[in-house]
Amino acid sequence: MSTIRWTRKDLLGLRDLSADEIQLILNTAQTFQEVSLRSVKKVPALRGKTIANLFFEPSTRTRISFELAEKRLSADTFHIAASTSSFVKGETLKDAARNIEALKVDAIVMRHSSSGAPHRIANYLKASIINAGDGINEHPSQALIDMFTILQSKKKLKGVRVSFVGDILHSRVARSNIWGLTKLGAEVTVCAPKTLLPRGVETLGVRATTSLKEAVKDADVINLLRIQLERQEESYFPSIREYATAYQIDSEILKNARPDVLIMHPGPVNRGIEITSDVVDGPYSVILDQVTNGLSVRMAILYLICGASGVSDKEEAA
Amino acid sequence: MSTIRWTRKDLLGLRDLSADEIQLILNTAQTFQEVSLRSVKKVPALRGKTIANLFFEPSTRTRISFELAEKRLSADTFHIAASTSSFVKGETLKDAARNIEALKVDAIVMRHSSSGAPHRIANYLKASIINAGDGINEHPSQALIDMFTILQSKKKLKGVRVSFVGDILHSRVARSNIWGLTKLGAEVTVCAPKTLLPRGVETLGVRATTSLKEAVKDADVINLLRIQLERQEESYFPSIREYATAYQIDSEILKNARPDVLIMHPGPVNRGIEITSDVVDGPYSVILDQVTNGLSVRMAILYLICGASGVSDKEEAA
Amino acid sequence: MSTIRWTRKDLLGLRDLSADEIQLILNTAQTFQEVSLRSVKKVPALRGKTIANLFFEPSTRTRISFELAEKRLSADTFHIAASTSSFVKGETLKDAARNIEALKVDAIVMRHSSSGAPHRIANYLKASIINAGDGINEHPSQALIDMFTILQSKKKLKGVRVSFVGDILHSRVARSNIWGLTKLGAEVTVCAPKTLLPRGVETLGVRATTSLKEAVKDADVINLLRIQLERQEESYFPSIREYATAYQIDSEILKNARPDVLIMHPGPVNRGIEITSDVVDGPYSVILDQVTNGLSVRMAILYLICGASGVSDKEEAA
Repeated sequence: MSTIRWTRKDLLGLRDLSADEIQLILNTAQTFQEVSLRSVKKVPALRGKTIANLFFEPSTRTRISFELAEKRLSADTFHIAASTSSFVKGETLKDAARNIEALKVDAIVMRHSSSGAPHRIANYLKASIINAGDGINEHPSQALIDMFTILQSKKKLKGVRVSFVGDILHSRVARSNIWGLTKLGAEVTVCAPKTLLPRGVETLGVRATTSLKEAVKDADVINLLRIQLERQEESYFPSIREYATAYQIDSEILKNARPDVLIMHPGPVNRGIEITSDVVDGPYSVILDQVTNGLSVRMAILYLICGASGVSDKEEAA
Repeated sequence: MSTIRWTRKDLLGLRDLSADEIQLILNTAQTFQEVSLRSVKKVPALRGKTIANLFFEPSTRTRISFELAEKRLSADTFHIAASTSSFVKGETLKDAARNIEALKVDAIVMRHSSSGAPHRIANYLKASIINAGDGINEHPSQALIDMFTILQSKKKLKGVRVSFVGDILHSRVARSNIWGLTKLGAEVTVCAPKTLLPRGVETLGVRATTSLKEAVKDADVINLLRIQLERQEESYFPSIREYATAYQIDSEILKNARPDVLIMHPGPVNRGIEITSDVVDGPYSVILDQVTNGLSVRMAILYLICGASGVSDKEEAA
Repeated sequence: MSTIRWTRKDLLGLRDLSADEIQLILNTAQTFQEVSLRSVKKVPALRGKTIANLFFEPSTRTRISFELAEKRLSADTFHIAASTSSFVKGETLKDAARNIEALKVDAIVMRHSSSGAPHRIANYLKASIINAGDGINEHPSQALIDMFTILQSKKKLKGVRVSFVGDILHSRVARSNIWGLTKLGAEVTVCAPKTLLPRGVETLGVRATTSLKEAVKDADVINLLRIQLERQEESYFPSIREYATAYQIDSEILKNARPDVLIMHPGPVNRGIEITSDVVDGPYSVILDQVTNGLSVRMAILYLICGASGVSDKEEAA
């Protein structure tokens, strides 16, 4: 059990974090886990704090999950759908962020289609930035959710074999998972058609394969990535049908899997494409547990960033 | 006065409810009525509960009314406008609902353009479903509001003569009212051009007429239904003008009405079409009372479903 | 220091207010100023009050600022984007406002593209109306923010020389500032090309000039108005480039300014058009202070209208 304290202003990615810091978030999430199961699902930890959700890319799931985590911590919260907002018309990203900071917010949960956008903003601002997905770079909260979900079943991450199947090339979820899992000693495999495997991905400490069979065999966890149907025109693979034939997870391929394999997916699921319906709803699937765990993990992130640091920086000084 | 307890997980329609259950909701609404008139319009009844508002059809009025009822009960609440949301892209309704349930919500207030959608979802989920309008089937909270509003003036429902005028065929408001009012002993008349009267509506225990005069005469309550201007092309009637000539409620036709008649309308009103402006603003109109009563009735529904059952199921066990 | 009490139901504009009333708002804002700097940025002043934000014109900044002010006062709040809402389809403005009032809201913060719309509504309703911008008429909260920001630096308004530069003709911000500043004894200059100066503006007690040099010289404050790029087609000036050449505030023109001049702008800024980037970010700029002060000023307005009057009207009677 880690005994370090959280000292960072921002959560930009798992690449920057130490194993101890990742473990601290996971441990903190564990303490929030029971809050969602109570009749009164609320704690006063962030009462009087303000958190802005600034989404330059729409996302109902991630937005709702963060929003609910914020409310269950008793924070005040507001949402800006920046694509449609005057905040982006004629304003630079920096101006938008500074204007939000001037409202004396404690943290900005930010999603952006450009890799590195939250990092640039974090440099300008005193307010904390929580990266809710930037381009194809990182999606740290989702990776922490995935790691937390594995931990729940397997009780450890060290030595656990996790295979990612799908569009590895464009997946910020895969990238953050790779950073996080390898730091905590898991053995990671990535599996995709050659066109969807990033060149030199092995240098990140993972095994790469184009064979689904190989990825499934011996895996403790199979974490599926959503196939972006809207990307099909870019022809990374001949057709959805062909992709599904070679890479779909169905009950047939799972006959070669371990009997205690976990099937994960960050959602939303394309039933019948990257995964069959019976597997989504089957006994190996922990896909809905990931949604539930999302709240605990995001509460932990928000608490560590706004709550813990808030106490040391401001109230102790008073 | 009913002394039964609320035991249902869901509120899907008035068709399923007993007279005692309907009475219980109306009585509970009465106790919430004074909350909206206080300086501090808030009670802690649902503190720490989470309620999702999942609207597959847009509706500002119903959304705001539920949202405010939830906030005045101190619940945490979030809204999903599902038509524009990624929750519906490539996801089945069932997946969307299960994902929301995985957030550990206590209830989902749901509006959908398909009759029966909330019933299907209610079968899948442990979370409570409150039907906020499904296709042309039911809109139970609106009917309870209408019944509550009648009760406020007439002090009883038994024997009260209520006439519905307008597009009966497509009206979930009329349908829910018919179930509710007949169960509590009111005498219901429906009035519309023949094309807008459901075939065999009399089997529901109501009187049907195409004569507005007949519907108005002896009525204690005239409840107008909104003419959906956007449906005009389907030519259920020759033209809006012709409809208005035959079925508009104006001060002339009201000369034949009882001196204590109530004019009701679920809103929004088309002034000058189904009703003239002077009648909307006139002494018989309780249209704005319906809006006010909406809060008390919806607070009652939410309280019975999330609060009362919550106590018995969870806290008593603790 | 003023010792009067707030007695008005509405805040429609600064034209109607006495100097004492304006001073009361500014003093009240001062007491809220420290709330935004605390670790717990929340006071229970408006707990159990309901405030509706009814925006017939979209505005992310003003919406967020009011919403956050409401939440930091612990009010319940909801938002209606009326342009896209069924509240406006087939409903008159009056009907929409009455329906919102029937929800027993304490105040409606309203933005509308027609000058005078909030005044008309205020006549119909018992609920308080706070004008968040009406057509080209008034934007009182922004002017109060500007006055508060001047007061913060200059410790007084009497005798302070304030120059407005930009589209005076269409600016509700300029208009409200003129009413407020002249009542409190400031000396106001307006500066624009002739086509953007309202005819007879001098009758409001201000000096008008087409010379930027003259407006800058001796000014204690230069308050820039946003050039509405979307209005360019109406050809109030030959081109944006030509406007910028004559009226842009850059470091060159500021060499003629006082060394303690304040540069203000209600935002969002068009960098490189009405103002250069280095001036936005330079030492004279208090543009982000205006954003921060927006919260204190709007908290003060909401508190005086909903809180103070609420106590005298309702609770004292109880």
